[in-house]
Amino acid sequence: MVYDTLIIGGGPAGLTAAIYASRFKLSAIVIAKDRGGLLQLVHKIENWPGEKSISGIDLMNKMIDHVKHFDVPVEDDEVVSIEKPENFIVKTKQGKEYEAKTIIVATGTQRRKLGVPGEKEFFGRGVSYCATCDAPFFKDKNVGVVGGSDASAVEALMIAEHAKKVYIIYRKAEIRAEPITKEKIANTKNIEIITNTNVTEIKGDKMVTSVMFDNGKEFPLDGLFIEIGGTPISMLVEKLGAKLNEKGEIITDDSSKTNINGLFAAGDVTDCTYKQAIVASAEAAMAAFSAFKFKMEQKS
Amino acid sequence: MVYDTLIIGGGPAGLTAAIYASRFKLSAIVIAKDRGGLLQLVHKIENWPGEKSISGIDLMNKMIDHVKHFDVPVEDDEVVSIEKPENFIVKTKQGKEYEAKTIIVATGTQRRKLGVPGEKEFFGRGVSYCATCDAPFFKDKNVGVVGGSDASAVEALMIAEHAKKVYIIYRKAEIRAEPITKEKIANTKNIEIITNTNVTEIKGDKMVTSVMFDNGKEFPLDGLFIEIGGTPISMLVEKLGAKLNEKGEIITDDSSKTNINGLFAAGDVTDCTYKQAIVASAEAAMAAFSAFKFKMEQKS
Repeated sequence: MVYDTLIIGGGPAGLTAAIYASRFKLSAIVIAKDRGGLLQLVHKIENWPGEKSISGIDLMNKMIDHVKHFDVPVEDDEVVSIEKPENFIVKTKQGKEYEAKTIIVATGTQRRKLGVPGEKEFFGRGVSYCATCDAPFFKDKNVGVVGGSDASAVEALMIAEHAKKVYIIYRKAEIRAEPITKEKIANTKNIEIITNTNVTEIKGDKMVTSVMFDNGKEFPLDGLFIEIGGTPISMLVEKLGAKLNEKGEIITDDSSKTNINGLFAAGDVTDCTYKQAIVASAEAAMAAFSAFKFKMEQKS
Repeated sequence: MVYDTLIIGGGPAGLTAAIYASRFKLSAIVIAKDRGGLLQLVHKIENWPGEKSISGIDLMNKMIDHVKHFDVPVEDDEVVSIEKPENFIVKTKQGKEYEAKTIIVATGTQRRKLGVPGEKEFFGRGVSYCATCDAPFFKDKNVGVVGGSDASAVEALMIAEHAKKVYIIYRKAEIRAEPITKEKIANTKNIEIITNTNVTEIKGDKMVTSVMFDNGKEFPLDGLFIEIGGTPISMLVEKLGAKLNEKGEIITDDSSKTNINGLFAAGDVTDCTYKQAIVASAEAAMAAFSAFKFKMEQKS
């Protein structure tokens, strides 16, 4: 069969696209390398409107149930190539081939990892990659923020509103934040910058208790935010000719359209400024609407 | 006190802005003319990600609880004027005055009504103002769509995917849809256009059963979508100098900023292309983030 739309990605964007596609009576399928996406790894979400406090798994299971309720199939598989002789031809790791009139890319971002011992074990137990999501959980705690970009400095400011003390830990001699952010950091009493330093290990028992520095010192901390950027998973569509920005994010307009006819994108993989589940879902709703309009135009 | 941000509107945008503002530790207050907004009037919502089927009241109560949980006050009052000598000064109908560093406008849209008998009584019981939201509830039914714009024609196409028969009812001799939409309408077997006709009354018992036309005929219908546009509630900020588009919607960038420093806007009142709760919430999250960044810059 030829699907009206094939959705790549199983996070909030991919699943919301499936929900909306079904509402538009589009024949749709979701190919998800990772059903539930990055969000399902988050132990506690308190900023999804209407959910005071919910685990990532529970929120994503609610979305997966929603998609199943609408009979949109979700395949646990990985897309390895996309071609567009006329319709889109999608091949997967499991050797399957799909044909679709439109594609919604919702592949998300691969968060850059420190790659040190303890990072994986303590993820969600002191280690975080999202200050907006997790800062309030560190009330009156001592927290480290690894990274020297302006974005990570803004995250540090955000965390400082909750934490007792925030240590920005950066491998170079000076953080790269914008002057206004630097000034604000300097004026914030509970932020201290530790430069020329790398974290080499994260230690703890149930939760993070300390980190090791590359000068051999052990430094006590209750949490560590790793804010060293991410890589948008946009390689497949780059080969197809989709326009990316300098960060490798897919450039989309406010209808979630890319430069390729019939190719839409939503969520963290796009050039949206604010990487949040709610934003990803909104972009996905728009992408499905655009796929519906595409079908209407084709039919005429 | 001087609030970090004052949020005007109690719908999904206003409440999400409050949730995010609280997460950013901004001192915030919501002034809501209509707590829960338009959405609470919807009898069944099936496209809020994670909620297979929920009433408008239940979804909005969940959001209101979420806001209360974060201790953001929600005042049932109406803003009557906004001035900006330095900070924003907001006056309300109940005679209160508030001062705030930033404002998030989330006042939404006033849906244009037909203004005929039965319209109010049967809202949510056959009468709808949102095809994306409600079309699937009219499976195998006979449905009318009042309106002649391209948007209402697209809505008719959407409803035709579910309904047995769709009648576009328009007061003039020809609908104003774009050529491609018109062509598609012509090729869709279960859509019929009734021109030169006005609906003068909506009749029913528990649900809509018929409408009266201005030629005196009674026409049997199971539902009526009223798609004659809306008026964004943007008058207050227009006086302040906020730039509006030709529809009267507040022009915002992708960080929910307006042309006025410290004035942000989110939801149906903005120039976003796709009016959905999930989009409104996403814009509101961005508006709160922009308000946080504004505060950080001010403090320096």
